[in-house]
Formats: sequence, C-alpha cells, structure tokens
Amino acid sequence: MKVKGIFITFEGPEGAGKTTILNKLAEKLEKSGKSVVATREPGGIVISEKIREIILHPEHTEMDARTEALLYAAARRQHLVEKVIPALYKGSIVLCDRFVDSSLAYQGYARGLGIEEVLKINRFAINGLMPDLTLYFDISPEKGLERISKNNRREINRLDLEKIDFHRKVREGYEKVINMFPNRINIIDADQPLDKVLQAAEKALISYMQETR
Amino acid sequence: MKVKGIFITFEGPEGAGKTTILNKLAEKLEKSGKSVVATREPGGIVISEKIREIILHPEHTEMDARTEALLYAAARRQHLVEKVIPALYKGSIVLCDRFVDSSLAYQGYARGLGIEEVLKINRFAINGLMPDLTLYFDISPEKGLERISKNNRREINRLDLEKIDFHRKVREGYEKVINMFPNRINIIDADQPLDKVLQAAEKALISYMQETR
Repeated sequence: MKVKGIFITFEGPEGAGKTTILNKLAEKLEKSGKSVVATREPGGIVISEKIREIILHPEHTEMDARTEALLYAAARRQHLVEKVIPALYKGSIVLCDRFVDSSLAYQGYARGLGIEEVLKINRFAINGLMPDLTLYFDISPEKGLERISKNNRREINRLDLEKIDFHRKVREGYEKVINMFPNRINIIDADQPLDKVLQAAEKALISYMQETR
Repeated sequence: MKVKGIFITFEGPEGAGKTTILNKLAEKLEKSGKSVVATREPGGIVISEKIREIILHPEHTEMDARTEALLYAAARRQHLVEKVIPALYKGSIVLCDRFVDSSLAYQGYARGLGIEEVLKINRFAINGLMPDLTLYFDISPEKGLERISKNNRREINRLDLEKIDFHRKVREGYEKVINMFPNRINIIDADQPLDKVLQAAEKALISYMQETR
C-alpha cells in the first residue's frame, strides 16, 4: 500500500505564530476540499499522553536530559504510528505542530546533547518517515518574546529576559538543522503581520504541491 | 572524579538461574567485606517504575515495538543515572540483572528490530557506560523451560511449547551479541547443578578482578 498523503511539519521558536498559521492553513485547505489532519504530539494518543505526563510531572526534577529525549522519541513514535501514518495512508494532508527538528534544536543543540546524537534516536523512532515539507517560522528571539507577551497581555518580565539567551541558542540550533536539510525545510519570515506570514506559508505549500504533482 | 567500582551484568534466557546466582554472589561478596549493590531495572527508581508501568500496562496492546524499545532505553538511562553510577563512584561492585544485551537479544534479534538499530538507542542511553564484565548464563531453551516449570511445580503446557521457538531466537540473538563483544561477555554453562554454575560465575568474577587489579 502506497502512502498517498503529504506530511508537513511546522517548526520555529515560541511566538513565531506557527500554531495560528497551522490552524488557518488547515481551514483553508479543508474549504478547498482537501482531507486535512491537524495535529501535535502527543495528539490524544493514550500511550503518548502517558509518556508526556512523566516528562512534564513537576516532581520529576531528577529527570536526566537523555531520559527525556528518549521519552520524547517514544511519544513521537506512537503518535506517528497511531495518528500520522494512518492519515497519510488515507491520503490526507497532515499538518503537525513540531516534530523531529524541535528535538534537534531544543534538546540536541540548546540543551547540549548533540544534534547528531538526538537525530540517531529520532531516526530509530520515525523509521524513515521524515516530513515531506517543513515550514520553519523564523523570528528573532526579541520579536518572538514581544509577541508572546502581547498575546498574554502582559509586560516582558525578568524571567522572559533570562530566557532570551536560551531562545538565541534554539535559533542557532534551528539554523544548523536547516543546513542539514535545506531541501526539506522552507524558511518563512515570521517577522511580519500574520496575514503576510500566512500568505508566505501558503505559497510554500502550493509550490511544493506543484513540484511533486 | 574517577569511577572506582565494577559494573557486572547478568544475562541469559529465563530458567538459566541467573537471578539465583546473582543473589548468591552478592551474599558471598558482602561476606568477604565488599560493598555490593544488587539491582535490576527499574530498580525502585520512580521515573523508571512509571515508564515500566506504561510498557507493561495490559490495555496498551497498541504499543509499537519501537516505542517499547525507546521506553526500555529511557528507563535504563534513569536507573543508570540514579542508582548504578552513584554506586560505582562510591566504589561498589554493582551486580545488575539484565542490561543492554537483553534488549539486543530480545528486541533487536528475537522481535526483529535489528541488533544494530537497538544498540544505537542504547548507546545514547548509556552514554559510554558499558558493563565491565557480563556473565551470560547459557542453557538450551528446552532445559531452561524444564527448570521454569520445576520451579513453578507444574507440567510444561502448550503455551510453553509455543514459546520455545521464541526462546530459540533469543538464544541465537545472544550468540550474535557475544560475537560482537567477546571480551566483555563471559559464557557460563548453566546446564549443570546450581552450585557448579555458582562456582563458574565466581571463577569468572575472580579472574576478571585479578586481571584488572
């Protein structure tokens, strides 16, 4: 049986607007008669939700960074098997909010485990099913931060500013990941009004679909 | 800080007597004044116990083999970080019932995921901390099965016999693993009375300690 669908992942730092764009794109595609599955890990998959609970449990302060990376990969695998792959076989366009590249940028680079190392366990988890297309929403850490605080209707606080160094590292991490997969990852300038970002994302998607038709 | 302890793992199919031997060896070593930690995954580590619950939950029949392998690796990592490594730093002899080789033989070979593939995620999990010495308790599937049924004081049943093909595969898997790590893994003939098996295990341990002194 041949996979007929298209697997598209949405990547970028917080505040880049990727979740908003994902939902708007899903709506547009559905209106145009496409079968669309919009999802994010753990995506309502029982086993993945339980794994997520272990990762996020506030009392698990002793959690090692490698344990965490393996748990994310396990949750990813199960979400893929139960939700993404069946949808792709049915011919749907799957829009997934964050995937392997997030683990590479955040855990591999920003947390220092090593991009190649984290890629190895993720390759085991996805077993060859890399996204067909990835939209990377690029924004400076400062602008991303500004957008988050506006959304939450609050001032930028001290904690936000402390986090900015980490966000810079995440962006550096993404830059390295883009260099590893330049054909798959499409950079969208997210430092413009949301309707412009949506237009750019739509254009990238249409151009991908025309190329592979 | 230098690791001063010795990390010894016990491997083999069910019915080979490895757990009995491990406990007897721990007792003997303690009597001779050594600091000993006898353990097995998840070993009372909260995070590892919770991961184990997800793996063994009877309702999780949809669990994918790769998800399971990643969860075992995650539980292994946390047990290593919280229990094995601190004991080794204190200079203890750590005796661990099953470790990486079990995953390679059972999941990598018998379940068909591939030994090299499963080794990759386990290398990430252990981050270089391979056992100093591994005792592999070798027994034919038929003899192992006989010993299990004797222990449970019951006849060998149809299900046991159906399982024998799987146990044969596990043994084949272990043979491949031994070929990959011939220096680390010491083969103990487990098809003899338990006191003889214990003697052989003791001999292997003493010979390792003399070589590395």
